[in-house]
Amino acid sequence: MNYDQVIKETIKSNNSKIVMLVMDGVGDLRSPKFHNKTPLEYAQTPNLDKLAAVSALGRSIPILPGITPGSGPGHLGLFGYDPLQIAIGRGVLESIGIGFDLKNGDVAARCNFATMNEHGRITDRRAGRIPTEITEILCQKLKSIKEIDGVEIIIEPGKGHRFVTVFRSKEKEIGALINDTDPLEEGKAPLAAKGQNSQSEFLAKVINKFVHLGYDLLKNEHSANAFLLRGIASKPKIPTMRDKYLLESAAIAAYPMYRGIASLLGMTLLPAGDSIEGLFQSYIENRHKYDFFFIHVKGTDQAGEDGDFDSKVSCIEKVDKSLPILLEHIPDVLTITGDHSSPCAMRSHSWHPVPTLIHGPFTGADDVQFFHENACNQGSLGFFESKYLMGILLSNAKRLDKFGA
Amino acid sequence: MNYDQVIKETIKSNNSKIVMLVMDGVGDLRSPKFHNKTPLEYAQTPNLDKLAAVSALGRSIPILPGITPGSGPGHLGLFGYDPLQIAIGRGVLESIGIGFDLKNGDVAARCNFATMNEHGRITDRRAGRIPTEITEILCQKLKSIKEIDGVEIIIEPGKGHRFVTVFRSKEKEIGALINDTDPLEEGKAPLAAKGQNSQSEFLAKVINKFVHLGYDLLKNEHSANAFLLRGIASKPKIPTMRDKYLLESAAIAAYPMYRGIASLLGMTLLPAGDSIEGLFQSYIENRHKYDFFFIHVKGTDQAGEDGDFDSKVSCIEKVDKSLPILLEHIPDVLTITGDHSSPCAMRSHSWHPVPTLIHGPFTGADDVQFFHENACNQGSLGFFESKYLMGILLSNAKRLDKFGA
Repeated sequence: MNYDQVIKETIKSNNSKIVMLVMDGVGDLRSPKFHNKTPLEYAQTPNLDKLAAVSALGRSIPILPGITPGSGPGHLGLFGYDPLQIAIGRGVLESIGIGFDLKNGDVAARCNFATMNEHGRITDRRAGRIPTEITEILCQKLKSIKEIDGVEIIIEPGKGHRFVTVFRSKEKEIGALINDTDPLEEGKAPLAAKGQNSQSEFLAKVINKFVHLGYDLLKNEHSANAFLLRGIASKPKIPTMRDKYLLESAAIAAYPMYRGIASLLGMTLLPAGDSIEGLFQSYIENRHKYDFFFIHVKGTDQAGEDGDFDSKVSCIEKVDKSLPILLEHIPDVLTITGDHSSPCAMRSHSWHPVPTLIHGPFTGADDVQFFHENACNQGSLGFFESKYLMGILLSNAKRLDKFGA
Repeated sequence: MNYDQVIKETIKSNNSKIVMLVMDGVGDLRSPKFHNKTPLEYAQTPNLDKLAAVSALGRSIPILPGITPGSGPGHLGLFGYDPLQIAIGRGVLESIGIGFDLKNGDVAARCNFATMNEHGRITDRRAGRIPTEITEILCQKLKSIKEIDGVEIIIEPGKGHRFVTVFRSKEKEIGALINDTDPLEEGKAPLAAKGQNSQSEFLAKVINKFVHLGYDLLKNEHSANAFLLRGIASKPKIPTMRDKYLLESAAIAAYPMYRGIASLLGMTLLPAGDSIEGLFQSYIENRHKYDFFFIHVKGTDQAGEDGDFDSKVSCIEKVDKSLPILLEHIPDVLTITGDHSSPCAMRSHSWHPVPTLIHGPFTGADDVQFFHENACNQGSLGFFESKYLMGILLSNAKRLDKFGA
């Protein structure tokens, strides 16, 4: 019996409310460049600290020790989906990342505009990195291809030379076991799509026709006269939060990637306002309608990736300042955590364990008066893989029965 | 997907240097017999403490909680090889332990000299524990058997009544799925060797002939007139550190067992000098030639196994005193750890988590000023299985990419 099966055997429903506040990339490092304090240590956070004093603290390990997660695996872990067991294909991630509403059965590909010479060889796999505005115009051209062999073709521009193509079939099942058409090296011709089973072979033929028609539409373009398909993937069949936990769940997240992941897990997407205050306001307005709320703060990660210590501190202080909005109607169980660390000194995601707080009627209190990395080292949650966080929250909400007699 | 696959997917190479300083059996316990302090607490270690203050600390669990490792599994874990997944047969461990250079395809057996009566029954499975010098003389006799059915027979004396036999075949593949010939009880006859597949059956016949010829050579010996073969095993096929991590690795270790394990993993064996200072000097001399250095200090374990607190303290102080040699050319990432604990009060290996320090540009600093067991309990590495240590080191050396988008 594994963890998922234990949860399934012990899960029950009640009226409790759980809120997961994710400060993206909040974890950090002390660095001589930045006052030898982490942003959480440096920031003025009276509300977080007051809460920490009456909460359980610890550090969550996003995947496994030493592994740096992308946003996809990072968030899957927080919602209790083992990030090493569930793969979300790149095409799917890219399309949910630009806010596309994928349906079951859809197959998505991430695409690059590219430059091809008169011999049909790719001379630039990124079409000289054409700007987003040009990509938007070219996508408009490709959109004239609406359907091939009963498969709907949906095209959405992304950033720079990138766009997404979604294949949707209402009649026939379509498969995604299809190679990239990207030859990976310049000087080579694009590869033909081939499918590894009959459903995929059917779609591979559609893709080859789409490429043929599309190249024809682009033939007079100077640089972007071709395109390459990569990471062709189906929307994965993942149990929803309702299936797994009997939770009616909602996401309050402004950015497409996180809205996309939440949507894949069956969460309702709520308005996120345009400020941190707005995130909490949205919870207040909707708090009676759902059991579980995922609230996503992006600023901490952005600042970490930019190496902007002051901006990370300021984002943390804004969260702290707005926190009383949430605390006024405090849910039964509240966790404050991150999907990974993004140390300012590294300007990137990292593997460092994430400061995590859980507040509820049965969390007790640790000998800790602050919410920051070193304080969390001392807490009663210890160091734990983030895929176990949901189990701890559900138990704190009395939504898990005893296992075994 | 498992941890090894994640490493494989994210590994990359760069110019960073990683040093792993293993103080064998360094972990210990407070005991009223020994000042109620552990050797690490009691020792004067100004250099280790200074380093601890600017490092990440934690405790590594050699195998799993409560499991006491031998030197083989203990070191496999440190190098990121799951000690529960990789079995090194006893014959192989014994032969690398005495410094024998096993080749691919070799089969090794640990052997005991034994006493047999006129009815062919074993009356003493250890031949009255004859001294090493006698064993050396008897092995010299056995060495007259050089080859049987095209299989080379190589004999090397060990300590006391023990020796090693290595079977090497250049033409035919030989298998090691062969029972021990040791009857385990006195009063019984040695067992005939039997193979479980055709390659093993071929070697079993060779072994039976070897036993027959060997007993004949020993028939006039008083006590050691027979021998028993145990733990018959092939050299395991383990990916090297280069295969796994793209690391050019070197070992600076004086004792055969550790040189043997390092050699199995593809490390180059460097001179180890004859003092702790010598270990560090060897690193200094070779530091430009490799990416990864394993430096092994044996004294801490030996003292622990002897229950010699003062000697353990003194060994730790010697490491501390010599540390500046290494720190003068500090590698990008340095870890100081042990393969297990060897508490003086237990006079043996133990299961207790091992104090571990990692120093590098992205380790930050904990609220800890010392390098000892209780200080490490407070650190930002938490308690982690030692098989994850390499992943953490590689990430700190920026040799692992982000996992997933």
